[in-house]
Amino acid sequence: MEKNILLTIAYDGSNFCGWQRQPNTRTVCGELETVLSSIYQKEIKLDGTSRTDAGVHACGQCASFRVDSPVPAERLPRIMNNMLAGSRSAAVGDIRILRAEEMPEDFHARFSCRGKTYVYRIRNGQDPDVWLRNYRCQIVPPLDTAAMRQACSHIVGTHDFACFQSAGSPRETTVRTVYRLEIAETLSGGAKEIEITVTGDGFLYNMVRIMAGTLIEVGLGKRSPESLAQVIASCDRQKAGYVAPAQGLYLKEIYFDENEMLPKEDDDNGKTQLG
Amino acid sequence: MEKNILLTIAYDGSNFCGWQRQPNTRTVCGELETVLSSIYQKEIKLDGTSRTDAGVHACGQCASFRVDSPVPAERLPRIMNNMLAGSRSAAVGDIRILRAEEMPEDFHARFSCRGKTYVYRIRNGQDPDVWLRNYRCQIVPPLDTAAMRQACSHIVGTHDFACFQSAGSPRETTVRTVYRLEIAETLSGGAKEIEITVTGDGFLYNMVRIMAGTLIEVGLGKRSPESLAQVIASCDRQKAGYVAPAQGLYLKEIYFDENEMLPKEDDDNGKTQLG
Repeated sequence: MEKNILLTIAYDGSNFCGWQRQPNTRTVCGELETVLSSIYQKEIKLDGTSRTDAGVHACGQCASFRVDSPVPAERLPRIMNNMLAGSRSAAVGDIRILRAEEMPEDFHARFSCRGKTYVYRIRNGQDPDVWLRNYRCQIVPPLDTAAMRQACSHIVGTHDFACFQSAGSPRETTVRTVYRLEIAETLSGGAKEIEITVTGDGFLYNMVRIMAGTLIEVGLGKRSPESLAQVIASCDRQKAGYVAPAQGLYLKEIYFDENEMLPKEDDDNGKTQLG
Repeated sequence: MEKNILLTIAYDGSNFCGWQRQPNTRTVCGELETVLSSIYQKEIKLDGTSRTDAGVHACGQCASFRVDSPVPAERLPRIMNNMLAGSRSAAVGDIRILRAEEMPEDFHARFSCRGKTYVYRIRNGQDPDVWLRNYRCQIVPPLDTAAMRQACSHIVGTHDFACFQSAGSPRETTVRTVYRLEIAETLSGGAKEIEITVTGDGFLYNMVRIMAGTLIEVGLGKRSPESLAQVIASCDRQKAGYVAPAQGLYLKEIYFDENEMLPKEDDDNGKTQLG
């Protein structure tokens, strides 16, 4: 009987031309399909939830495929991780299967998705760090995180987010709901580590990176927190900020059940949780 | 007049075939010589203090070169870092010049070196981390750091360290002095971060990695802390542990003045400092 298997996947996006399979380039989906096709000895087609761009990371990407095989889904992470690690002395590849589970017949990684959480990570400090160049957006001038938090309050909610959409990937509607948008700040080795966490029912092309770029411009004092209201109302991409670089972006979690992502009312009594 | 310029350099060793220049491969020394030769419009030859292997990182590598030029040494970091960053959107390359200073005529990065500090970094926890695969030695079974610390006490001092030398790079003598060898332990995201810090007057080929490999075997209970005394006395490479992988190793600091590296007596009143 055909199984419908869901994989939860982490990857370091640094050495991939993004998620989506393309001929003659290394992509996450392409690597996984090669491994799965070799395990099952037949061509496997994988449907991913998010088409992450080149350089974007994932701690919780999801993808599903259908296969007629007696191999239990729970055995897949170990088998696939061994194949993905290859012959590296580290014994860790740049893709790791975190979980594999059988899903109902009508489940589809992309169409069953109800929402996602992304994290955008910024290292704010003097002297850029060579080891983090693929893992953070590194900003030298100090960022005003209080102003950035104020700006967030204008973004949360249901809006037409056309201003935060890059050209080239038109959708039926540009209305989306941002349930949660928070900025956390910690000190790490003399620099500030700033994390922008955003949960929404869906995101337009480049939406999180343009949102992050606009918030960075607020943090640098180049635009006011209040201006965000006009930026959103304008529906004009030209009014929003730059596309913050890919290496700061992490796809953190994907929700197939709406209840998992909605803020719980009794959780914080209306107070904003700032990690 | 000819200047003798000392560079202090950080690099992520992941994408280099080590320090030493070689034809047709990307090496740290090769990249730096290309940049310097382009700045001065003549061939520059760089002498590095340590010939780090492929995959090994450096926070404080040193290298010197001689040049007849009016450009002040202090301007070099900015000029070189811009060229090293290339066209990456991150604006950070995988080599970074931390300092440049003029040295006396008789200074030489290699022959004037009096000692070095290396750090070996281990991530000890379930579920290897994909983002740290090039930056830590990842060990899953729990390491007994108390046993590892006990073993360290047998290594500190002046010994014939032939047991910790890989073949292929013979030296006049295999006697070296280890001034300090410490193990620090912190928690980071559910895993233990273990740092082995070692300071010595010089290190044989692969000495720090074999020492780390032997300490890891002690931590895993595969050999006793006391056995280290016999391992060293044997002068036999076969008696010591495996060569721990390159990606855990960081060249932290180089000393050209003996007083900078010797443990200060009034610092700790004889107690061992364990970060």
